[in-house]
Amino acid sequence: MKYCNTVFSGASSEVLSEGMTRAPVVTMPTVVHAAHLKKWIEEPQRIDYLREVFSSTTRFGKLQKVDATVAGRHVYLRFSCSTGDAMGMNMVGKGINTVMADLQQNHFPELRLVSLSGNMCIDKKPSALNWINGRGKSVVAGVTLTGDVVRKVLKTTPAAMAELNVTKNLVGSAMAGSIGGFNAHASNVVTACFLAMGQDPAQNVESSTCITQMELINNGEDLYVSVTMPSIEVGTIGGGTGLPAAKACLSMALGNIPQENPGDGARALARVVAGTVLAGEISLLAALSSGHLISAHMDLNRKPSTTI
Amino acid sequence: MKYCNTVFSGASSEVLSEGMTRAPVVTMPTVVHAAHLKKWIEEPQRIDYLREVFSSTTRFGKLQKVDATVAGRHVYLRFSCSTGDAMGMNMVGKGINTVMADLQQNHFPELRLVSLSGNMCIDKKPSALNWINGRGKSVVAGVTLTGDVVRKVLKTTPAAMAELNVTKNLVGSAMAGSIGGFNAHASNVVTACFLAMGQDPAQNVESSTCITQMELINNGEDLYVSVTMPSIEVGTIGGGTGLPAAKACLSMALGNIPQENPGDGARALARVVAGTVLAGEISLLAALSSGHLISAHMDLNRKPSTTI
Amino acid sequence: MKYCNTVFSGASSEVLSEGMTRAPVVTMPTVVHAAHLKKWIEEPQRIDYLREVFSSTTRFGKLQKVDATVAGRHVYLRFSCSTGDAMGMNMVGKGINTVMADLQQNHFPELRLVSLSGNMCIDKKPSALNWINGRGKSVVAGVTLTGDVVRKVLKTTPAAMAELNVTKNLVGSAMAGSIGGFNAHASNVVTACFLAMGQDPAQNVESSTCITQMELINNGEDLYVSVTMPSIEVGTIGGGTGLPAAKACLSMALGNIPQENPGDGARALARVVAGTVLAGEISLLAALSSGHLISAHMDLNRKPSTTI
Amino acid sequence: MKYCNTVFSGASSEVLSEGMTRAPVVTMPTVVHAAHLKKWIEEPQRIDYLREVFSSTTRFGKLQKVDATVAGRHVYLRFSCSTGDAMGMNMVGKGINTVMADLQQNHFPELRLVSLSGNMCIDKKPSALNWINGRGKSVVAGVTLTGDVVRKVLKTTPAAMAELNVTKNLVGSAMAGSIGGFNAHASNVVTACFLAMGQDPAQNVESSTCITQMELINNGEDLYVSVTMPSIEVGTIGGGTGLPAAKACLSMALGNIPQENPGDGARALARVVAGTVLAGEISLLAALSSGHLISAHMDLNRKPSTTI
Repeated sequence: MKYCNTVFSGASSEVLSEGMTRAPVVTMPTVVHAAHLKKWIEEPQRIDYLREVFSSTTRFGKLQKVDATVAGRHVYLRFSCSTGDAMGMNMVGKGINTVMADLQQNHFPELRLVSLSGNMCIDKKPSALNWINGRGKSVVAGVTLTGDVVRKVLKTTPAAMAELNVTKNLVGSAMAGSIGGFNAHASNVVTACFLAMGQDPAQNVESSTCITQMELINNGEDLYVSVTMPSIEVGTIGGGTGLPAAKACLSMALGNIPQENPGDGARALARVVAGTVLAGEISLLAALSSGHLISAHMDLNRKPSTTI
Repeated sequence: MKYCNTVFSGASSEVLSEGMTRAPVVTMPTVVHAAHLKKWIEEPQRIDYLREVFSSTTRFGKLQKVDATVAGRHVYLRFSCSTGDAMGMNMVGKGINTVMADLQQNHFPELRLVSLSGNMCIDKKPSALNWINGRGKSVVAGVTLTGDVVRKVLKTTPAAMAELNVTKNLVGSAMAGSIGGFNAHASNVVTACFLAMGQDPAQNVESSTCITQMELINNGEDLYVSVTMPSIEVGTIGGGTGLPAAKACLSMALGNIPQENPGDGARALARVVAGTVLAGEISLLAALSSGHLISAHMDLNRKPSTTI
Repeated sequence: MKYCNTVFSGASSEVLSEGMTRAPVVTMPTVVHAAHLKKWIEEPQRIDYLREVFSSTTRFGKLQKVDATVAGRHVYLRFSCSTGDAMGMNMVGKGINTVMADLQQNHFPELRLVSLSGNMCIDKKPSALNWINGRGKSVVAGVTLTGDVVRKVLKTTPAAMAELNVTKNLVGSAMAGSIGGFNAHASNVVTACFLAMGQDPAQNVESSTCITQMELINNGEDLYVSVTMPSIEVGTIGGGTGLPAAKACLSMALGNIPQENPGDGARALARVVAGTVLAGEISLLAALSSGHLISAHMDLNRKPSTTI
Repeated sequence: MKYCNTVFSGASSEVLSEGMTRAPVVTMPTVVHAAHLKKWIEEPQRIDYLREVFSSTTRFGKLQKVDATVAGRHVYLRFSCSTGDAMGMNMVGKGINTVMADLQQNHFPELRLVSLSGNMCIDKKPSALNWINGRGKSVVAGVTLTGDVVRKVLKTTPAAMAELNVTKNLVGSAMAGSIGGFNAHASNVVTACFLAMGQDPAQNVESSTCITQMELINNGEDLYVSVTMPSIEVGTIGGGTGLPAAKACLSMALGNIPQENPGDGARALARVVAGTVLAGEISLLAALSSGHLISAHMDLNRKPSTTI
C-alpha cells in the first residue's frame, strides 16, 4: 500500500469518491417536459458539452456528472464537480450559474429557473442523499486492534467492544430513526477538526455522518474497527484556511504527506478527519465498554464523562 | 402577548416543550423480561420514585419522564429532564447513572447495563427521534410580512416567496430524503450563534433541524413565515458560556429579557436562536427569489452568494 | 410465563403497547395560537374531558392520549385510541370528528380544520413516527435456538447467522437509508397473513416494519433471535375478517388462544403475525447463511430462491 | 406526444428510468481491499465484461450498471438490470449469482460472499435508496385540472386543494419523518392494482412511495396535479400474471396500448398504476377539501370515509 494511503501508523484509509455538488431547481410546463429535460441532460454524450460550458468560469473545477431528479414538473439538476484543493462550493456555484443560463437560453426556453439551490445539493442539512450518493469526499478508514491491545490499553475485550457497537451504534441509532448517525460521537471530532483547520463548521451536519463497525476477526481474538464517512466537505485552500492558526494546524496535520497533484491536499485532509474519528470512536467505546465491565465498582458520585 | 414571547419587534416565538435526554441501554435475558421492564418503568406512579432517586445527585435537574423502547431483549430508557439554565448533559448523565444503579441493585438484578448512552438520547447525530419527540428546547417562531415590505425591502413578491419555499425547502428536501432539513440554511445561523455564545457547535447537527414555512395570507396580499425547530440545545450557564466573549454576546442578546425563574435564560436563548434563523431564512429566500425574477439581467460573472 | 404470552412452542412474544391513531391538522392564526392549542390540549387533566366527548360516538373505542405537533401555525393532533378487537380506523375517525367539532365550537373558534387526516396518523405510508411511537400493536417476539438445532436443522452455525444478520439486516439497511426496514423479508410474511386473515394489505407498508436481531448467547454456543415490530395494524372483527376464508384462517391461527376481554383477539393476532415473521426471518437467514458456507459447491444453474 | 405517453385522456405520464436491482454483500480482508473492489468494478470499461458474464444465464435480462457501496471492509454491489416485461427479481438473481462466482474465482480470491442479498437491493422494505435512485420503473404522471372542473366536479377550489396538499402531504409527512410518503393514499391504489393484476403485493412497501404535488397555475385559475413514483415494481409476464383473473385485468388495463418491444408492457403497466394513483389522490384530496369547506354543515354522525 502506498504511503499516502495511511493516515497514521497501523490504520489505513481510502478516498472512495469525491465531488462537490450544487443542485438548481427548474420548473417546466408539464411532467412531459420535465421528463424530456431529464433524458436530454443525462444522455451519455451530453457531459462533454456541459463540461465545456462549465469550464468557462473556472480553471480548477471540472464538471463530473449531473443527475436529474424529477418531482412533478420540477427538475432538480444535481451537478457534481471536482474542485482541486478547495472545498469548492463557490467554484461550483459560479460554473453552474453559467450552465443554467446556457440551458435556458440555448436549449430549453420554456425552462424557468426557480432557485440556484433546490435543496438537493444538499448543503448543511441532514439527508439520505449525501449519505447514499456522497458529497465532498467519501472516505473509509480501518484498523486491526489485537486482543492484547484491547485488553491492556483499552481495558476491555474485543467481544465486549463488538457487542457494544452493535447494541449502541447500529441498533440504538436504528431505533432512533437515524440516517447516517451510526456512530458514537463523530460530530465532536469533525467539529474540532473543522474549527482548528479553517473549515466551515456549519457543514458538520453532513460531514459527521458516519457508520462505525467493530467486528471480531481471527477467530474472535482480535477486533477490526472501521469508520465510513461518505460526505466530508473539506479544503486546504479558500475559506478560513488562510488564517494563521488554521494554517499552522493544517501544516501539522498534513505537513509530511506528499501533495503533488491538485486535490491531494484536500483528500489527505479528509482522510486525516476520518482517521481522527476512528480514534475517537475506539476511545469512547472502550471507555463505555470497560465502564460496563467494572460497573459494580463504579464510583457513582464521580463526574461522568462529558462526551458520551 | 407578554413581552417575553417576542424576540424582536414584529415576530413572535414560543417554547413548545423542553427536556434534556439521556438514554442508557440495558440487556435483559429475554424479550419477555425486556417487555416487563418497559411496563414497570412506564407505569404512571413510577415517575415519582425515579425522580426522587434522580434528584439525589442534582439540585437543578428534575426528571420529567422516561420512555422505554424495546428492541429484542434490549431496552433503551430515554430519560427526559429539565435542567434549569444549563444545556444539561452532564447534570442528566450524573442523575441517570444513579437511577441505573438503583434499578439494577434494587429491582432488576438480571438487568445488564450495556452503555450509559445507547444512542437513543440521541446526541450529535441526525435522527427522526429528536425531530419528532424533541430534545433541548422545541421552539416555533413566526412573523407576518406585509406585501409592501416584501416588494419594497425584499424586492420580490409574497407569491414568489411562497412558491420558492415549497419547491426548495419542502419538495427539494423531501426528494433528498431529509429528516428535519426542510430549510435553507438554518445550520449557518445556529453555528454562528453557538460559536458566539459559548454553546457546543457539535450539537448543531440536531439543533439546526428546522422546517421553514411561507404561506400567503390575507387573500394572497401578505406572507406568513415561520420556523419550527424541535431540538435546540442551549444553556446560559456551564460549558463555554463563562468565557469573556461568550458572556458579552449573551449579554447583548439576552440583556433586556427578564430572567426571574431557573430556565428563563436558556429558554430566551433558544428563542433568540430561532428568531435569528427566521431572519436568515427570509433573507436567503428573498435573495434567491428576486434573483430568479431578474435573472435576465443577472451579471453571470459576479461572484455568487456563498450561502445558498 | 402465562400461556397467552407464547405463540408457538419455544418462542415468546409480548404486546408492548397499542393504540390506533388519527391526526387531524388545524390551522391557527399565528404560531402563538398554535403553541397555545398544544399546551391546552396536552394539559394532564384535559384527557378526561376529551375522552368523554370522544366516547359519545363509540362503545368500544377509548381515547388514550393526544400528542400535538406544531409546524408553524399548523397543529397536528395525533389522537391514540384503544379499539377493542377492531383494527379501528373507522371507529377512531368517527370519534375524532366529534372531538374536532367540539374544539372548534366550544374552545377555539379561531381554529380552522384543514383535514381530518394531516398525515401524522400516519396511515399506509413509510414513516419514522410509527416506527418510534408505534401504531396499532407494538410487538416483540424472541426465541433461543440451540447450537445443535442451528447446525442440524438449519445447516449453519450460530456465529454465521449472527454475522449475516449484522452485515445484511443492520448495516445493509443502514447504508440503504432505511427507517424500520432492518429485516430480511417481513413484508412477505405480513402480506401473506393479512391476505389470508382479512386484514388490509395496503397497511403492510408500516405493519411490516421490523428489526431482526440475532445474538450469540451462552458463550457463543447458542443464538437468540428476535423481531421487534412497532406498528402491526390488525383486528379480528370488521374489515374483511367476516369473509368465510378469512374466518377459517383466523380460527386456525387463534382458535386455541383464550379471548376473554375486548382486544384479546386482536392482540393475539398481532402476536401470531410477529411469531410468523420470526420464523420467516430464521428460515431465510439460515438459507442465505448455509448457501454461503457451501458456496464452493453451489450449483450455479439452479433456479435461485425467490424470496431473498 | 406519442399515444403511449398518455394513460388516460387529459393526463400524461412518463417512465423516467427503469432497472431491477439486486445487491449481494461481500466481505474483504480490509477497508483497502474493499475500496479497491469498488474502484475496479466501477471503472467505465468494466460494465461490458460484467454484462457478458451476466448474459450467459438469461436472454431477456441485461445488466445496465453496478454501484458499489463500501461500509468498512464490506462492499454492497447493487446491480441494476433491464428485465423486459418481467418484474425481474428471479432473472436478475440468477445472473448476479453467476457474476459473483466469476468475481470470486477469477478476480478477487480474497472476496467472501456473505449473502446474495445484502439489503441494498432493497426489496420490500422502506428506504431512501429506492426513493432516491429508483427501483423497477420510475414514473411521473400529471394533469391540468381547470378551475371549472375543480369547482363543479370536485366541489372545491384550486386554492383549497393546493393549500391542503402542502399542509397534509408535504408538511404533515415531513413532520412524521417520512421518506417517500408524501401522498394521501397511494398504497390503497397500488395494492388494489397489484392484487388485481397478478403483481407481488408485498412489494407495495416501496412501489407505493409517491410525492403528490398540487400547484396553482394560470394566475391561480387552474390546478396542476402530479404524482412522482420512483419505485414501481411490475411485470406483465411471470409471477401471478398468468392467472385467469389477472390476465383479464391486465388485458382491460393494457389492451389498447401498443406493445411492440420487450418491456413495453411492463412500462405501460407502471404508467397505468401511476395514473390510477393520480386519480386517487385527486379524489381523496377533493373529498377532504370540500369537507372542510362545508364543515359547518357536516353531519357528524354519518359513517366517515374509510380511506382518509
